[in-house]
Amino acid sequence: MKSKARPATGRMLYAQSGGVTAVINATAAGVIQTARAHGVKVYAARNGILGALREELIDTGKETAAAIEALRHTPGGAFGSCRYKLKSLDANRAEYERLIDVLRAHDIRWFLYNGGNDSADTALKISQLGKAMGYDIRCIGVPKTVDNDLAVTDCCPGFGSVAKYTAVSTLEASLDVASMADTSTKVFILEVMGRHAGWIAAASGLAGEGEDAPPHIILFPERVFDEAAFIAKVKATVERVGWCTVVASEGIRNAEGQFLAEAGTRDAFGHTQLGGVAPVLAALVKEELGYKYHWALPDYLQRSARHLASKTDADQAYAVGKAAVEYALKDMNAVMPVIVRSSDAPYRWKIEPASLDKIANREKKMPANFLTRDGFGITAAARRYLAPLIQGEAPLPYGRDGLPKYVQMKNVAVAKRLPEFSH
Amino acid sequence: MKSKARPATGRMLYAQSGGVTAVINATAAGVIQTARAHGVKVYAARNGILGALREELIDTGKETAAAIEALRHTPGGAFGSCRYKLKSLDANRAEYERLIDVLRAHDIRWFLYNGGNDSADTALKISQLGKAMGYDIRCIGVPKTVDNDLAVTDCCPGFGSVAKYTAVSTLEASLDVASMADTSTKVFILEVMGRHAGWIAAASGLAGEGEDAPPHIILFPERVFDEAAFIAKVKATVERVGWCTVVASEGIRNAEGQFLAEAGTRDAFGHTQLGGVAPVLAALVKEELGYKYHWALPDYLQRSARHLASKTDADQAYAVGKAAVEYALKDMNAVMPVIVRSSDAPYRWKIEPASLDKIANREKKMPANFLTRDGFGITAAARRYLAPLIQGEAPLPYGRDGLPKYVQMKNVAVAKRLPEFSH
Repeated sequence: MKSKARPATGRMLYAQSGGVTAVINATAAGVIQTARAHGVKVYAARNGILGALREELIDTGKETAAAIEALRHTPGGAFGSCRYKLKSLDANRAEYERLIDVLRAHDIRWFLYNGGNDSADTALKISQLGKAMGYDIRCIGVPKTVDNDLAVTDCCPGFGSVAKYTAVSTLEASLDVASMADTSTKVFILEVMGRHAGWIAAASGLAGEGEDAPPHIILFPERVFDEAAFIAKVKATVERVGWCTVVASEGIRNAEGQFLAEAGTRDAFGHTQLGGVAPVLAALVKEELGYKYHWALPDYLQRSARHLASKTDADQAYAVGKAAVEYALKDMNAVMPVIVRSSDAPYRWKIEPASLDKIANREKKMPANFLTRDGFGITAAARRYLAPLIQGEAPLPYGRDGLPKYVQMKNVAVAKRLPEFSH
Repeated sequence: MKSKARPATGRMLYAQSGGVTAVINATAAGVIQTARAHGVKVYAARNGILGALREELIDTGKETAAAIEALRHTPGGAFGSCRYKLKSLDANRAEYERLIDVLRAHDIRWFLYNGGNDSADTALKISQLGKAMGYDIRCIGVPKTVDNDLAVTDCCPGFGSVAKYTAVSTLEASLDVASMADTSTKVFILEVMGRHAGWIAAASGLAGEGEDAPPHIILFPERVFDEAAFIAKVKATVERVGWCTVVASEGIRNAEGQFLAEAGTRDAFGHTQLGGVAPVLAALVKEELGYKYHWALPDYLQRSARHLASKTDADQAYAVGKAAVEYALKDMNAVMPVIVRSSDAPYRWKIEPASLDKIANREKKMPANFLTRDGFGITAAARRYLAPLIQGEAPLPYGRDGLPKYVQMKNVAVAKRLPEFSH
């Protein structure tokens, strides 16, 4: 070797956490390609932090360069993710100690945790405990969430693509409804993700501008659902425009604080379940106004639609992965690469480190001035913020079969060195 | 003018019918561009056949060449469509006579009706009545339907794009579910259109091949829903693969012949409604197996998703429009340009005329040998038929705002020449 290389023994561990996105694997590609360029080996935890607890590690060194490059355009979580929140240090110190044991057993010196505010908290705690236990570990949080609710960062990788999917779908379905409204569907309701915050619903507002352009009504979890005002606005819109497109956050609630979805539809067994506010609204429209309606609930389709990803989002997802490795190798600890916006138009952004303790367990709310006074639309301020996030397309290779060429990792397991751990 | 032009007085009328598609406007572009090349003026009926009855005609000559070209990539129905089936000649001869009156008043010599088997029937009747009433009119049916159920033609423009949307969405959502299955969603259910025939559901089968590839289970309206067999297959799949993707046609029925959607979910007011078989299946899975689930119902999103159109489909949609004009100007009558397949791989097709009386009011069923013995998947024969229809991408211009550049017609009205008609 020509120059003094980094010690071959120190490894990096990368884990994905929580709901996956259309671009979280672009972050993985940023991590692995950057680490490879620095001669550092990357292990991935199988199914997120659970893989670290179970010592189920994947050797990403077994994947070809072409496969890692293809991660840049493959949705879902290539190594698996999980919904598993570690308890507090006091409540379950054994879990944290186990994590340190696994890191130590595999000589892992850098831990990159790709998730939301829970994950930032976990990464922070591991960095603190490592210090307390005398194990030298650098922990970097890497941002990801379609909910766009992380503190400090201007936006979250994953959000821009679901925002673009939602805006384009709203536009396309509205062209359909406009064609049919004379004799058929007059009201179309699109239900989108967002239990606590209306970021995704807000993005649908980019589909059009002006009173007569779709979506005509957006329902946000930030506002109490006002049935009378909603019905009145649907009626006025249909009478003026001929039809009406409504976009509803799954998490809207009535004045009693009940999720509208739970207050309404029951399944075949009489159970209530979340994830169906659209049919409740549709039934309301039918009952009160008699209009024909259609409703859609794209669910996972919205967050896995890599075929319609935003270039801005895909670029940022890759950039945070790259920066995370650079920070780690610069011996930074307990930080997260965040997106800093310096200009709306032309859109300019850069990546900077932010302390995990400013991010862990916090939640970014939508600013009050993003919603119009009647609560059914977005303001110019919201447009300025949202517009750049859906800009640009992120081309995808398609096969001769007409399907995107998504990659499947080999996911070769690293031999275990520790006894089983029951958590 | 250098050569003898076609008489300037004869006009062509184009109307869209029934549910619109991602590519019906490509057919409109084929019609208008071809007619313009022949020096023939095209009127469009506003909102389908109702526009012809109401004498609400649109002068497409007022649209720029660029706008017409942009129709090739704009979903929905640019001039409006309708769900309106003319009664039989005996039951409502006045309606047919009114149509002839409107055609005569505007010197319309060619009528192109873009729709399904109902529309083929209407076009056929008008051609017959024109003859009986001494008015010289050529009627051409132009195929369109996402349901792919037209007789004679190998496939229907509109179907290939919804097929591609469904296959890609199945693949993408499955990558998501695979990531989450360890601790969260184990069963994902995608509900697709298809009240009477499972063509769209079948297309989801192109997402993967082999027992372990998604979709693991497809539910077709061609088979009675067998709850025990379904639950057993979900369980076996989750135990073997770790998760399970189900694609269900909206129109599946139980042994009593009830739509499963109606047998299950009721809305807030206790009404049943079609369009929600996915939540019924999800509840069943939860009740019988206890697995976490997610479900999606893309509804209009699937048939308006021009951003994910199939090139094969977009090309065929344009070609039938072009051919329809050529047939009309060759004085052919009561025919439809249909797609004839001469080879599966490489895929080869051409357009040929077929008599409307072979198409009107008939329905093409899915061949029995397209479904696997257990009724939960598609056969190699189905793959050979379906695969070419989703091949190729149909690029779309995007604006700097990150949205597709869809066109809005000016839709300039033609002055009325007749008194009102009440139908």
